[in-house]
Amino acid sequence: MKVIKTIDSLRRDLQLRKADGHSVGFVPTMGALHEGHLSLIHQARDNHEVVVVSVFVNPLQFGEGEDFESYPRDIERDQQLCEEAGVDILFYPSVEEMYPREASVEIRVVQGVDVLCGESRPGHFDGVVTVVLKLLHMVEPNAAYFGQKDAQQVAVIKQMVQTLSMSVQIIACPTVREEDGLAKSSRNVNLNTRERELAPALYSTLIKAGELAKSGSSRTELMEYVAKNLDQLELGTIDYVDVLTYPELVASEQLSGTVIIAVAYQFSRARLIDHILVEL
Amino acid sequence: MKVIKTIDSLRRDLQLRKADGHSVGFVPTMGALHEGHLSLIHQARDNHEVVVVSVFVNPLQFGEGEDFESYPRDIERDQQLCEEAGVDILFYPSVEEMYPREASVEIRVVQGVDVLCGESRPGHFDGVVTVVLKLLHMVEPNAAYFGQKDAQQVAVIKQMVQTLSMSVQIIACPTVREEDGLAKSSRNVNLNTRERELAPALYSTLIKAGELAKSGSSRTELMEYVAKNLDQLELGTIDYVDVLTYPELVASEQLSGTVIIAVAYQFSRARLIDHILVEL
Repeated sequence: MKVIKTIDSLRRDLQLRKADGHSVGFVPTMGALHEGHLSLIHQARDNHEVVVVSVFVNPLQFGEGEDFESYPRDIERDQQLCEEAGVDILFYPSVEEMYPREASVEIRVVQGVDVLCGESRPGHFDGVVTVVLKLLHMVEPNAAYFGQKDAQQVAVIKQMVQTLSMSVQIIACPTVREEDGLAKSSRNVNLNTRERELAPALYSTLIKAGELAKSGSSRTELMEYVAKNLDQLELGTIDYVDVLTYPELVASEQLSGTVIIAVAYQFSRARLIDHILVEL
Repeated sequence: MKVIKTIDSLRRDLQLRKADGHSVGFVPTMGALHEGHLSLIHQARDNHEVVVVSVFVNPLQFGEGEDFESYPRDIERDQQLCEEAGVDILFYPSVEEMYPREASVEIRVVQGVDVLCGESRPGHFDGVVTVVLKLLHMVEPNAAYFGQKDAQQVAVIKQMVQTLSMSVQIIACPTVREEDGLAKSSRNVNLNTRERELAPALYSTLIKAGELAKSGSSRTELMEYVAKNLDQLELGTIDYVDVLTYPELVASEQLSGTVIIAVAYQFSRARLIDHILVEL
Protein backbone atom coordinates (compact mmCIF):
# COMPACT_ATOMS: atom_id res chain seq x y z
CA MET A 1 0.00 0.00 0.00
CA LYS A 2 1.18 3.50 -0.88
CA VAL A 3 0.64 6.38 1.53
CA ILE A 4 0.35 9.58 -0.54
CA LYS A 5 0.17 13.08 0.88
CA THR A 6 0.09 15.39 -2.15
CA ILE A 7 -2.50 15.83 -4.87
CA ASP A 8 0.16 15.85 -7.59
CA SER A 9 1.62 12.48 -6.68
CA LEU A 10 -1.87 11.03 -6.19
CA ARG A 11 -2.79 12.10 -9.74
CA ARG A 12 0.47 10.80 -11.20
CA ASP A 13 0.05 7.41 -9.52
CA LEU A 14 -3.59 7.03 -10.53
CA GLN A 15 -2.96 8.13 -14.10
CA LEU A 16 -0.64 5.17 -14.65
CA ARG A 17 -3.11 2.69 -13.17
CA LYS A 18 -6.03 4.12 -15.15
CA ALA A 19 -3.99 3.99 -18.38
CA ASP A 20 -3.87 0.22 -17.81
CA GLY A 21 -7.68 0.24 -17.91
CA HIS A 22 -8.04 -0.27 -14.16
CA SER A 23 -11.27 0.71 -12.46
CA VAL A 24 -10.95 2.81 -9.29
CA GLY A 25 -13.12 2.60 -6.15
CA PHE A 26 -12.83 5.43 -3.64
CA VAL A 27 -13.70 5.50 0.06
CA PRO A 28 -13.47 9.03 1.54
CA THR A 29 -13.22 9.03 5.36
CA MET A 30 -12.28 11.27 8.27
CA GLY A 31 -10.14 8.46 9.69
CA ALA A 32 -10.60 6.76 13.08
CA LEU A 33 -11.69 3.81 10.97
CA HIS A 34 -14.18 1.29 12.38
CA GLU A 35 -16.10 -1.71 11.09
CA GLY A 36 -18.44 0.55 9.12
CA HIS A 37 -15.57 1.99 7.10
CA LEU A 38 -14.08 -1.47 6.62
CA SER A 39 -17.32 -2.73 5.10
CA LEU A 40 -17.08 0.13 2.55
CA ILE A 41 -13.47 -0.77 1.79
CA HIS A 42 -14.33 -4.45 1.36
CA GLN A 43 -17.10 -3.62 -1.07
CA ALA A 44 -14.79 -1.32 -3.06
CA ARG A 45 -12.14 -4.11 -3.00
CA ASP A 46 -14.68 -6.55 -4.49
CA ASN A 47 -15.64 -4.19 -7.32
CA HIS A 48 -12.42 -2.51 -8.47
CA GLU A 49 -8.83 -3.19 -9.44
CA VAL A 50 -7.70 -0.11 -7.49
CA VAL A 51 -8.98 0.98 -4.07
CA VAL A 52 -8.20 4.48 -2.75
CA VAL A 53 -9.05 5.48 0.83
CA SER A 54 -8.69 9.10 1.93
CA VAL A 55 -8.24 10.14 5.55
CA PHE A 56 -8.90 13.85 6.03
CA VAL A 57 -10.59 15.56 8.96
CA ASN A 58 -12.30 18.34 7.03
CA PRO A 59 -12.37 21.61 8.99
CA LEU A 60 -15.03 23.08 6.65
CA GLN A 61 -17.74 20.73 7.91
CA PHE A 62 -17.28 21.51 11.60
CA GLY A 63 -19.28 24.43 12.97
CA GLU A 64 -18.25 26.79 15.73
CA GLY A 65 -18.15 24.96 19.03
CA GLU A 66 -18.06 21.58 17.27
CA ASP A 67 -15.29 19.07 17.87
CA PHE A 68 -12.80 19.67 15.02
CA GLU A 69 -9.80 19.87 17.37
CA SER A 70 -10.80 16.88 19.49
CA TYR A 71 -12.05 14.71 16.62
CA PRO A 72 -10.28 11.33 17.03
CA ARG A 73 -7.13 10.95 14.90
CA ASP A 74 -5.06 7.76 14.75
CA ILE A 75 -3.31 7.56 11.39
CA GLU A 76 -1.02 4.66 12.40
CA ARG A 77 -4.00 2.46 13.26
CA ASP A 78 -5.91 3.65 10.15
CA GLN A 79 -2.90 2.83 8.02
CA GLN A 80 -2.64 -0.66 9.49
CA LEU A 81 -6.36 -1.34 8.99
CA CYS A 82 -6.18 -0.13 5.38
CA GLU A 83 -3.14 -2.30 4.70
CA GLU A 84 -4.90 -5.37 6.15
CA ALA A 85 -8.00 -4.62 4.07
CA GLY A 86 -5.97 -4.60 0.84
CA VAL A 87 -6.18 -0.89 0.08
CA ASP A 88 -3.86 0.25 -2.76
CA ILE A 89 -3.52 3.95 -1.94
CA LEU A 90 -4.07 5.73 1.36
CA PHE A 91 -4.42 9.45 0.56
CA TYR A 92 -3.62 11.48 3.66
CA PRO A 93 -3.34 15.18 2.77
CA SER A 94 -2.75 18.09 5.16
CA VAL A 95 -5.25 20.92 5.56
CA GLU A 96 -2.80 23.16 3.63
CA GLU A 97 -2.67 20.68 0.75
CA MET A 98 -6.48 20.56 0.55
CA TYR A 99 -7.12 24.28 1.08
CA PRO A 100 -3.95 26.10 -0.01
CA ARG A 101 -5.65 29.48 -0.55
CA GLU A 102 -8.90 31.29 -0.05
CA ALA A 103 -11.76 29.74 -2.02
CA SER A 104 -12.76 31.61 -5.19
CA VAL A 105 -16.11 29.80 -5.38
CA GLU A 106 -18.41 28.52 -2.65
CA ILE A 107 -20.83 25.64 -2.83
CA ARG A 108 -24.07 25.83 -0.98
CA VAL A 109 -26.52 22.95 -0.52
CA VAL A 110 -30.03 24.30 -1.10
CA GLN A 111 -32.09 21.10 -0.93
CA GLY A 112 -32.49 18.66 1.95
CA VAL A 113 -30.51 20.63 4.54
CA ASP A 114 -33.13 22.33 6.69
CA VAL A 115 -34.25 18.93 8.06
CA LEU A 116 -32.82 16.11 10.20
CA CYS A 117 -29.22 16.74 11.32
CA GLY A 118 -28.88 19.72 8.96
CA GLU A 119 -31.32 21.75 11.03
CA SER A 120 -28.95 21.94 14.01
CA ARG A 121 -25.72 22.09 11.95
CA PRO A 122 -25.90 25.13 9.62
CA GLY A 123 -23.19 25.04 6.94
CA HIS A 124 -22.21 21.46 7.80
CA PHE A 125 -23.34 19.96 4.50
CA ASP A 126 -21.82 22.86 2.51
CA GLY A 127 -18.49 21.75 3.98
CA VAL A 128 -19.23 18.09 3.23
CA VAL A 129 -20.08 18.60 -0.44
CA THR A 130 -17.13 20.95 -0.94
CA VAL A 131 -14.57 18.43 0.31
CA VAL A 132 -16.27 15.50 -1.45
CA LEU A 133 -16.38 17.42 -4.75
CA LYS A 134 -12.67 18.27 -4.42
CA LEU A 135 -11.73 14.69 -3.50
CA LEU A 136 -13.77 13.32 -6.41
CA HIS A 137 -11.93 15.72 -8.75
CA MET A 138 -8.59 14.52 -7.37
CA VAL A 139 -9.27 10.79 -7.53
CA GLU A 140 -11.73 10.74 -10.47
CA PRO A 141 -12.94 7.28 -9.40
CA ASN A 142 -15.48 5.08 -11.14
CA ALA A 143 -17.41 4.76 -7.89
CA ALA A 144 -17.31 6.30 -4.41
CA TYR A 145 -18.55 4.45 -1.31
CA PHE A 146 -20.40 6.02 1.62
CA GLY A 147 -22.10 4.56 4.69
CA GLN A 148 -25.89 4.60 4.40
CA LYS A 149 -25.86 5.22 8.18
CA ASP A 150 -25.26 8.89 7.39
CA ALA A 151 -28.42 8.92 5.31
CA GLN A 152 -28.66 12.68 4.90
CA GLN A 153 -25.01 12.94 3.84
CA VAL A 154 -25.50 10.24 1.22
CA ALA A 155 -28.67 11.95 -0.02
CA VAL A 156 -27.00 15.35 -0.30
CA ILE A 157 -23.98 13.87 -2.13
CA LYS A 158 -26.16 11.88 -4.55
CA GLN A 159 -28.15 15.01 -5.34
CA MET A 160 -24.96 17.06 -5.83
CA VAL A 161 -23.58 14.50 -8.28
CA GLN A 162 -26.84 14.74 -10.23
CA THR A 163 -27.04 18.55 -10.18
CA LEU A 164 -23.40 18.92 -11.27
CA SER A 165 -23.69 16.20 -13.97
CA MET A 166 -20.84 14.09 -12.57
CA SER A 167 -20.28 10.61 -13.94
CA VAL A 168 -19.09 8.97 -10.70
CA GLN A 169 -21.34 6.30 -9.21
CA ILE A 170 -22.26 6.96 -5.57
CA ILE A 171 -22.71 3.68 -3.69
CA ALA A 172 -24.36 3.65 -0.27
CA CYS A 173 -23.38 0.61 1.83
CA PRO A 174 -25.80 -0.77 4.42
CA THR A 175 -25.51 0.24 8.08
CA VAL A 176 -23.50 -2.30 10.07
CA ARG A 177 -25.42 -3.35 13.21
CA GLU A 178 -24.84 -5.18 16.48
CA GLU A 179 -26.68 -8.51 16.87
CA ASP A 180 -29.52 -6.80 18.71
CA GLY A 181 -29.97 -4.27 15.89
CA LEU A 182 -28.15 -1.25 17.35
CA ALA A 183 -26.31 0.59 14.58
CA LYS A 184 -22.53 0.42 15.10
CA SER A 185 -21.08 3.80 16.03
CA SER A 186 -17.98 5.02 17.76
CA ARG A 187 -20.35 6.84 20.10
CA ASN A 188 -21.94 3.63 21.46
CA VAL A 189 -19.16 3.31 24.05
CA ASN A 190 -20.61 6.37 25.74
CA LEU A 191 -23.88 4.56 26.57
CA ASN A 192 -24.28 3.36 30.18
CA THR A 193 -25.45 -0.20 30.87
CA ARG A 194 -29.14 0.64 31.10
CA GLU A 195 -28.97 2.84 27.97
CA ARG A 196 -27.13 0.14 26.03
CA GLU A 197 -29.88 -2.35 26.96
CA LEU A 198 -32.63 -0.08 25.71
CA ALA A 199 -30.86 1.55 22.73
CA PRO A 200 -31.91 -1.21 20.25
CA ALA A 201 -35.44 0.16 20.71
CA LEU A 202 -34.49 2.88 18.22
CA TYR A 203 -34.13 0.38 15.42
CA SER A 204 -36.98 -1.94 16.43
CA THR A 205 -39.34 1.06 16.61
CA LEU A 206 -38.24 2.17 13.13
CA ILE A 207 -38.85 -1.34 11.76
CA LYS A 208 -42.40 -1.35 13.17
CA ALA A 209 -42.99 2.14 11.76
CA GLY A 210 -41.83 0.85 8.38
CA GLU A 211 -44.49 -1.90 8.55
CA LEU A 212 -47.14 0.70 9.44
CA ALA A 213 -46.00 2.82 6.46
CA LYS A 214 -46.45 -0.16 4.16
CA SER A 215 -49.97 -0.69 5.48
CA GLY A 216 -50.91 2.90 4.70
CA SER A 217 -50.17 5.05 7.76
CA SER A 218 -49.71 8.76 7.06
CA ARG A 219 -46.58 10.78 7.75
CA THR A 220 -48.10 12.32 10.89
CA GLU A 221 -49.24 8.92 12.20
CA LEU A 222 -45.75 7.46 11.68
CA MET A 223 -44.01 10.36 13.41
CA GLU A 224 -46.43 10.14 16.34
CA TYR A 225 -45.93 6.37 16.59
CA VAL A 226 -42.13 6.63 16.72
CA ALA A 227 -42.18 9.57 19.14
CA LYS A 228 -44.62 7.79 21.51
CA ASN A 229 -42.53 4.62 21.57
CA LEU A 230 -39.24 6.42 22.16
CA ASP A 231 -40.77 8.63 24.87
CA GLN A 232 -41.52 5.41 26.75
CA LEU A 233 -37.76 4.73 27.02
CA GLU A 234 -37.63 7.50 29.65
CA LEU A 235 -33.83 7.67 29.32
CA GLY A 236 -33.13 10.79 27.31
CA THR A 237 -34.82 13.08 24.82
CA ILE A 238 -35.83 12.90 21.20
CA ASP A 239 -33.81 15.33 19.08
CA TYR A 240 -35.93 14.71 16.00
CA VAL A 241 -38.25 12.19 14.39
CA ASP A 242 -39.05 12.74 10.73
CA VAL A 243 -40.52 11.01 7.69
CA LEU A 244 -39.37 12.37 4.31
CA THR A 245 -39.00 11.43 0.66
CA TYR A 246 -35.56 10.00 -0.11
CA PRO A 247 -33.12 11.21 -1.36
CA GLU A 248 -34.93 14.55 -1.86
CA LEU A 249 -35.65 14.86 1.91
CA VAL A 250 -38.94 16.64 1.33
CA ALA A 251 -41.88 16.41 3.75
CA SER A 252 -45.04 15.11 2.08
CA GLU A 253 -48.18 13.79 3.77
CA GLN A 254 -48.80 11.54 0.72
CA LEU A 255 -46.09 8.89 1.06
CA SER A 256 -44.83 7.12 -2.08
CA GLY A 257 -41.56 5.98 -3.65
CA THR A 258 -38.61 5.72 -1.29
CA VAL A 259 -39.26 7.16 2.15
CA ILE A 260 -36.86 7.65 5.07
CA ILE A 261 -38.02 7.30 8.67
CA ALA A 262 -35.29 8.89 10.75
CA VAL A 263 -34.60 9.56 14.40
CA ALA A 264 -31.97 11.26 16.56
CA TYR A 265 -32.05 10.48 20.29
CA GLN A 266 -30.00 12.14 22.98
CA PHE A 267 -28.83 9.75 25.73
CA SER A 268 -26.94 11.08 28.75
CA ARG A 269 -23.53 11.18 27.01
CA ALA A 270 -24.28 10.06 23.45
CA ARG A 271 -26.49 11.34 20.66
CA LEU A 272 -27.41 8.44 18.38
CA ILE A 273 -29.00 8.59 14.93
CA ASP A 274 -30.71 5.80 13.05
CA HIS A 275 -33.13 5.44 10.15
CA ILE A 276 -34.73 3.00 7.77
CA LEU A 277 -35.67 3.37 4.12
CA VAL A 278 -39.06 2.02 3.03
CA GLU A 279 -40.20 1.41 -0.56
CA LEU A 280 -43.87 2.37 -0.90
CA MET B 1 -18.70 14.99 -37.26
CA LYS B 2 -21.28 13.71 -34.80
CA VAL B 3 -24.02 16.00 -33.47
CA ILE B 4 -24.98 14.75 -30.00
CA LYS B 5 -27.88 16.09 -27.95
CA THR B 6 -27.91 13.98 -24.79
CA ILE B 7 -25.40 13.64 -21.97
CA ASP B 8 -25.68 9.84 -21.97
CA SER B 9 -24.73 9.44 -25.61
CA LEU B 10 -21.97 12.04 -25.26
CA ARG B 11 -20.47 10.02 -22.38
CA ARG B 12 -20.81 6.71 -24.23
CA ASP B 13 -19.13 8.11 -27.33
CA LEU B 14 -16.27 9.75 -25.42
CA GLN B 15 -15.69 6.68 -23.24
CA LEU B 16 -14.81 4.62 -26.31
CA ARG B 17 -12.43 7.24 -27.69
CA LYS B 18 -10.74 7.74 -24.31
CA ALA B 19 -10.32 3.97 -23.89
CA ASP B 20 -8.17 4.15 -27.04
CA GLY B 21 -5.91 6.58 -25.18
CA HIS B 22 -7.14 9.62 -27.12
CA SER B 23 -6.72 13.07 -25.61
CA VAL B 24 -9.80 15.34 -25.64
CA GLY B 25 -9.88 19.11 -26.22
CA PHE B 26 -13.10 20.93 -25.40
CA VAL B 27 -14.39 24.30 -26.62
CA PRO B 28 -17.56 25.39 -24.79
CA THR B 29 -19.51 28.10 -26.65
CA MET B 30 -22.92 29.76 -26.77
CA GLY B 31 -22.98 29.29 -30.56
CA ALA B 32 -23.17 32.08 -33.17
CA LEU B 33 -19.59 31.11 -33.89
CA HIS B 34 -17.14 33.68 -35.23
CA GLU B 35 -13.42 33.84 -35.96
CA GLY B 36 -12.61 34.00 -32.26
CA HIS B 37 -14.30 30.66 -31.62
CA LEU B 38 -12.65 29.15 -34.70
CA SER B 39 -9.21 30.09 -33.38
CA LEU B 40 -10.04 28.15 -30.18
CA ILE B 41 -11.19 25.17 -32.23
CA HIS B 42 -8.05 25.26 -34.38
CA GLN B 43 -5.83 25.28 -31.32
CA ALA B 44 -7.75 22.36 -29.80
CA ARG B 45 -7.50 20.54 -33.16
CA ASP B 46 -3.71 20.99 -33.12
CA ASN B 47 -3.35 19.61 -29.58
CA HIS B 48 -5.81 16.70 -29.31
CA GLU B 49 -6.98 13.57 -31.09
CA VAL B 50 -10.60 14.42 -30.22
CA VAL B 51 -12.21 17.88 -30.35
CA VAL B 52 -15.59 18.51 -28.71
CA VAL B 53 -17.45 21.80 -29.20
CA SER B 54 -20.57 22.54 -27.19
CA VAL B 55 -23.23 25.01 -28.29
CA PHE B 56 -25.53 25.95 -25.41
CA VAL B 57 -27.06 29.34 -24.68
CA ASN B 58 -27.00 29.13 -20.90
CA PRO B 59 -30.05 30.79 -19.32
CA LEU B 60 -28.36 30.86 -15.87
CA GLN B 61 -25.83 33.49 -16.92
CA PHE B 62 -28.36 35.99 -18.25
CA GLY B 63 -29.78 38.45 -15.75
CA GLU B 64 -33.26 39.94 -15.75
CA GLY B 65 -33.67 42.29 -18.69
CA GLU B 66 -30.65 40.77 -20.45
CA ASP B 67 -30.89 39.29 -23.95
CA PHE B 68 -31.38 35.54 -23.36
CA GLU B 69 -34.36 35.32 -25.72
CA SER B 70 -32.81 37.46 -28.46
CA TYR B 71 -29.28 36.03 -28.17
CA PRO B 72 -28.27 35.04 -31.73
CA ARG B 73 -28.84 31.35 -32.53
CA ASP B 74 -27.87 29.73 -35.83
CA ILE B 75 -27.15 26.07 -35.26
CA GLU B 76 -27.05 25.18 -38.99
CA ARG B 77 -24.26 27.67 -39.61
CA ASP B 78 -22.46 26.68 -36.38
CA GLN B 79 -22.67 23.04 -37.45
CA GLN B 80 -21.20 23.83 -40.86
CA LEU B 81 -18.34 25.86 -39.37
CA CYS B 82 -17.55 23.08 -36.89
CA GLU B 83 -17.58 20.49 -39.64
CA GLU B 84 -15.20 22.58 -41.77
CA ALA B 85 -12.90 23.10 -38.77
CA GLY B 86 -12.58 19.35 -38.24
CA VAL B 87 -14.56 19.08 -34.99
CA ASP B 88 -15.31 15.48 -33.95
CA ILE B 89 -18.33 16.02 -31.72
CA LEU B 90 -20.76 18.94 -31.63
CA PHE B 91 -22.63 18.72 -28.33
CA TYR B 92 -25.91 20.62 -28.61
CA PRO B 93 -28.11 19.91 -25.57
CA SER B 94 -31.49 21.43 -24.76
CA VAL B 95 -32.11 23.49 -21.64
CA GLU B 96 -34.10 20.53 -20.24
CA GLU B 97 -31.17 18.17 -20.84
CA MET B 98 -28.79 20.53 -19.02
CA TYR B 99 -31.12 21.50 -16.16
CA PRO B 100 -33.66 18.67 -15.81
CA ARG B 101 -34.63 19.51 -12.22
CA GLU B 102 -34.18 22.11 -9.52
CA ALA B 103 -30.55 22.45 -8.42
CA SER B 104 -29.71 20.80 -5.08
CA VAL B 105 -26.49 22.81 -4.77
CA GLU B 106 -25.60 26.31 -5.90
CA ILE B 107 -22.19 27.66 -6.83
CA ARG B 108 -21.30 31.21 -6.01
CA VAL B 109 -18.20 33.04 -7.20
CA VAL B 110 -16.78 34.97 -4.24
CA GLN B 111 -13.55 36.33 -5.75
CA GLY B 112 -13.08 38.64 -8.71
CA VAL B 113 -16.75 39.37 -9.39
CA ASP B 114 -17.39 42.78 -7.87
CA VAL B 115 -15.10 44.39 -10.47
CA LEU B 116 -15.07 44.95 -14.26
CA CYS B 117 -18.11 43.44 -16.05
CA GLY B 118 -19.17 41.59 -12.88
CA GLU B 119 -20.10 44.82 -11.16
CA SER B 120 -23.00 45.51 -13.52
CA ARG B 121 -24.02 41.84 -13.98
CA PRO B 122 -24.80 40.36 -10.55
CA GLY B 123 -25.05 36.54 -10.66
CA HIS B 124 -23.66 36.39 -14.21
CA PHE B 125 -20.45 34.58 -13.25
CA ASP B 126 -22.31 32.21 -10.90
CA GLY B 127 -24.21 31.08 -13.99
CA VAL B 128 -21.01 30.85 -16.03
CA VAL B 129 -19.11 28.67 -13.55
CA THR B 130 -22.15 26.44 -12.97
CA VAL B 131 -22.56 25.59 -16.64
CA VAL B 132 -18.80 25.26 -17.22
CA LEU B 133 -18.44 22.93 -14.22
CA LYS B 134 -21.31 20.77 -15.50
CA LEU B 135 -19.92 20.70 -19.04
CA LEU B 136 -16.45 19.80 -17.76
CA HIS B 137 -18.01 16.94 -15.77
CA MET B 138 -19.81 15.72 -18.88
CA VAL B 139 -16.88 15.88 -21.28
CA GLU B 140 -14.00 15.29 -18.81
CA PRO B 141 -11.54 16.75 -21.31
CA ASN B 142 -7.76 17.02 -20.93
CA ALA B 143 -7.98 20.73 -21.76
CA ALA B 144 -10.70 23.34 -22.26
CA TYR B 145 -10.23 26.40 -24.47
CA PHE B 146 -11.56 29.89 -23.77
CA GLY B 147 -11.04 33.25 -25.44
CA GLN B 148 -8.72 35.53 -23.48
CA LYS B 149 -10.94 38.37 -24.79
CA ASP B 150 -13.37 37.54 -21.97
CA ALA B 151 -10.57 38.06 -19.48
CA GLN B 152 -12.73 38.08 -16.37
CA GLN B 153 -14.52 34.89 -17.43
CA VAL B 154 -11.21 33.13 -18.00
CA ALA B 155 -9.92 34.36 -14.63
CA VAL B 156 -13.01 33.18 -12.76
CA ILE B 157 -12.92 29.77 -14.46
CA LYS B 158 -9.20 29.29 -13.80
CA GLN B 159 -9.74 30.16 -10.15
CA MET B 160 -12.70 27.76 -9.91
CA VAL B 161 -10.65 24.91 -11.36
CA GLN B 162 -7.99 25.60 -8.74
CA THR B 163 -10.40 25.94 -5.80
CA LEU B 164 -12.25 22.75 -6.76
CA SER B 165 -9.01 20.78 -7.42
CA MET B 166 -9.95 19.87 -10.98
CA SER B 167 -7.31 18.32 -13.23
CA VAL B 168 -8.46 19.90 -16.50
CA GLN B 169 -6.08 22.39 -18.12
CA ILE B 170 -7.71 25.76 -18.87
CA ILE B 171 -6.16 27.32 -21.97
CA ALA B 172 -6.79 30.98 -22.78
CA CYS B 173 -6.33 31.77 -26.48
CA PRO B 174 -5.21 35.26 -27.56
CA THR B 175 -7.76 37.84 -28.63
CA VAL B 176 -8.18 37.89 -32.41
CA ARG B 177 -7.81 41.47 -33.72
CA GLU B 178 -8.45 43.46 -36.88
CA GLU B 179 -5.35 44.78 -38.64
CA ASP B 180 -5.69 48.13 -36.87
CA GLY B 181 -5.81 46.39 -33.47
CA LEU B 182 -9.57 46.45 -32.76
CA ALA B 183 -10.56 43.24 -30.97
CA LYS B 184 -12.88 41.15 -33.15
CA SER B 185 -16.40 41.05 -31.77
CA SER B 186 -19.83 40.39 -33.20
CA ARG B 187 -20.78 43.81 -31.79
CA ASN B 188 -18.33 45.72 -34.03
CA VAL B 189 -20.94 45.83 -36.83
CA ASN B 190 -22.94 48.20 -34.62
CA LEU B 191 -20.21 50.87 -34.78
CA ASN B 192 -20.85 53.78 -37.16
CA THR B 193 -18.10 54.88 -39.57
CA ARG B 194 -16.61 57.53 -37.28
CA GLU B 195 -16.74 55.16 -34.26
CA ARG B 196 -15.11 52.37 -36.27
CA GLU B 197 -12.29 54.74 -37.20
CA LEU B 198 -11.60 55.73 -33.62
CA ALA B 199 -12.32 52.42 -31.88
CA PRO B 200 -8.73 51.11 -32.28
CA ALA B 201 -7.78 53.83 -29.77
CA LEU B 202 -9.02 51.45 -27.05
CA TYR B 203 -6.24 48.99 -27.78
CA SER B 204 -3.52 51.52 -28.60
CA THR B 205 -4.23 53.34 -25.33
CA LEU B 206 -3.99 50.05 -23.42
CA ILE B 207 -0.67 49.26 -25.11
CA LYS B 208 0.73 52.65 -24.06
CA ALA B 209 -0.58 52.15 -20.53
CA GLY B 210 1.19 48.79 -20.46
CA GLU B 211 4.48 50.52 -21.29
CA LEU B 212 3.88 53.04 -18.53
CA ALA B 213 3.19 50.18 -16.12
CA LYS B 214 6.51 48.59 -17.05
CA SER B 215 8.28 51.87 -16.37
CA GLY B 216 6.81 52.06 -12.88
CA SER B 217 3.52 53.98 -13.05
CA SER B 218 1.11 53.33 -10.18
CA ARG B 219 -2.40 51.89 -10.49
CA THR B 220 -3.97 55.33 -10.08
CA GLU B 221 -1.66 56.89 -12.67
CA LEU B 222 -2.47 54.16 -15.20
CA MET B 223 -6.22 54.47 -14.68
CA GLU B 224 -6.03 58.25 -15.06
CA TYR B 225 -3.92 57.91 -18.20
CA VAL B 226 -6.37 55.52 -19.89
CA ALA B 227 -9.43 57.52 -18.81
CA LYS B 228 -7.92 60.82 -20.07
CA ASN B 229 -7.05 59.34 -23.46
CA LEU B 230 -10.45 57.72 -23.96
CA ASP B 231 -12.28 60.85 -22.86
CA GLN B 232 -10.56 62.60 -25.77
CA LEU B 233 -12.43 60.32 -28.20
CA GLU B 234 -15.59 62.34 -27.42
CA LEU B 235 -17.76 59.62 -28.96
CA GLY B 236 -19.32 57.80 -26.06
CA THR B 237 -18.71 57.12 -22.39
CA ILE B 238 -16.30 55.06 -20.34
CA ASP B 239 -18.12 52.24 -18.53
CA TYR B 240 -15.03 51.30 -16.53
CA VAL B 241 -11.25 51.50 -16.53
CA ASP B 242 -9.44 49.28 -14.05
CA VAL B 243 -6.02 47.88 -13.21
CA LEU B 244 -6.03 44.64 -11.20
CA THR B 245 -3.90 41.61 -10.37
CA TYR B 246 -4.60 38.71 -12.74
CA PRO B 247 -6.23 36.23 -12.42
CA GLU B 248 -7.16 37.20 -8.84
CA LEU B 249 -8.69 40.50 -10.00
CA VAL B 250 -7.72 42.31 -6.83
CA ALA B 251 -7.00 46.04 -6.70
CA SER B 252 -3.52 46.84 -5.39
CA GLU B 253 -1.59 50.10 -5.65
CA GLN B 254 1.68 48.08 -5.60
CA LEU B 255 1.71 46.44 -9.05
CA SER B 256 3.64 43.19 -9.50
CA GLY B 257 3.25 39.81 -11.18
CA THR B 258 0.60 39.62 -13.90
CA VAL B 259 -1.61 42.71 -14.10
CA ILE B 260 -4.69 43.36 -16.25
CA ILE B 261 -5.46 46.81 -17.62
CA ALA B 262 -9.09 46.65 -18.73
CA VAL B 263 -11.62 48.97 -20.23
CA ALA B 264 -15.29 48.95 -21.25
CA TYR B 265 -16.45 51.77 -23.52
CA GLN B 266 -20.02 52.52 -24.54
CA PHE B 267 -20.37 53.73 -28.14
CA SER B 268 -23.78 54.82 -29.47
CA ARG B 269 -25.04 51.30 -30.22
CA ALA B 270 -22.19 49.04 -29.05
CA ARG B 271 -20.46 48.45 -25.73
CA LEU B 272 -16.92 47.20 -26.40
CA ILE B 273 -14.49 45.66 -23.92
CA ASP B 274 -10.76 45.23 -24.29
CA HIS B 275 -7.75 44.63 -22.06
CA ILE B 276 -4.09 43.78 -21.99
CA LEU B 277 -2.09 41.66 -19.58
CA VAL B 278 1.30 42.99 -18.43
CA GLU B 279 4.05 41.01 -16.69
CA LEU B 280 5.71 43.20 -14.04
